[in-house]
Amino acid sequence: MNIPSKYLENAVDQLSSLPGIGRRTALRLALNLLKRSETEIDDFSKSLIDMKHKIEMCSSCGNISDKNLCSICENSNRDNKTICVVEDIRDVMAIESTSSYKGIYHVLGGLISPMDGIGPLDLNIESLVNKVASQEIDEIIFALSPTMEGDTTNFYLYKKLQSFSPFITTLSRGVAVGSELQYADELTLSRSLLQRQEFKMS
Amino acid sequence: MNIPSKYLENAVDQLSSLPGIGRRTALRLALNLLKRSETEIDDFSKSLIDMKHKIEMCSSCGNISDKNLCSICENSNRDNKTICVVEDIRDVMAIESTSSYKGIYHVLGGLISPMDGIGPLDLNIESLVNKVASQEIDEIIFALSPTMEGDTTNFYLYKKLQSFSPFITTLSRGVAVGSELQYADELTLSRSLLQRQEFKMS
Repeated sequence: MNIPSKYLENAVDQLSSLPGIGRRTALRLALNLLKRSETEIDDFSKSLIDMKHKIEMCSSCGNISDKNLCSICENSNRDNKTICVVEDIRDVMAIESTSSYKGIYHVLGGLISPMDGIGPLDLNIESLVNKVASQEIDEIIFALSPTMEGDTTNFYLYKKLQSFSPFITTLSRGVAVGSELQYADELTLSRSLLQRQEFKMS
Repeated sequence: MNIPSKYLENAVDQLSSLPGIGRRTALRLALNLLKRSETEIDDFSKSLIDMKHKIEMCSSCGNISDKNLCSICENSNRDNKTICVVEDIRDVMAIESTSSYKGIYHVLGGLISPMDGIGPLDLNIESLVNKVASQEIDEIIFALSPTMEGDTTNFYLYKKLQSFSPFITTLSRGVAVGSELQYADELTLSRSLLQRQEFKMS
């Protein structure tokens, strides 16, 4: 692609560094921005700079926050003896949107993945171990993705945390609500059979 | 989506204002940016601000340029008696990448579209008429998209320009090179039949 301006080319280079944005899409985005007013572009850029400079991580759970403690850790109505371990703040948002969890979270910031060069020391694991060691905990819920990396991380965390012997659980795997049985993959269906539950009229 | 920081929410709002970027994708992009260093974010934002403040439009053809005249208009090897009328700078880039056109361009900046409230006065048409009226022109090529808006714009431009009676042409429509005949749509195939060419051994 032969872009006729080095400023446009520079913007396209930067936009195409974003995940899932190729150079063609980046050019479309850049031309869209170019049509806006200078104030709009300044607001756009300022929102990104502000985000980087002003966002703090919650010192307790690693969730994103505008303060030292996030609104969940700071909320005295939440059960701080139950910790749900997640990979990413998007998982916190997903679980929060179910309104069915009243404990607190711990955000790892990733999963152990030797293939990508991510080891336990790159993740927010030490503070979890310290937290569990230093205070009374009823339950730790591992809510990581059911992938190879998720299972590796589950295993590592289990080894680290079991000596403090709280009750450690993981999310149930099974057929998704509303999906048709015939389209479920074999592994999910077999886990769903193994972990079958007593039928209750609700 | 309940985003735990107003700075992150602001960045997501801005990113999701881009075409084809929904709020979920915007959050993914924002979190990707958040993981970068402050210098990288500053460079990212600066590239967008620079683009808006420093890019100039070519005063002759409306193409994007870093100078008053774009590299095509300023190139004395190009045939400035042939003008190719296009909608957008991406069309200039597409035609340039074929290396089979040696004339100059005129970028309209859009197409006449009453449905979207875009009339002839919103486009870069007056300067085209002035250019054609004031200098000797051999040929004007209409290279607009084969859509309703493209046809409307072709018709409007034809009415405006025919009195200066240069040779006015349009891109040929037909079956795409390398595509299979059975998958061509009826309209394209019928145009392709009507505009059939004498067979030549090349």
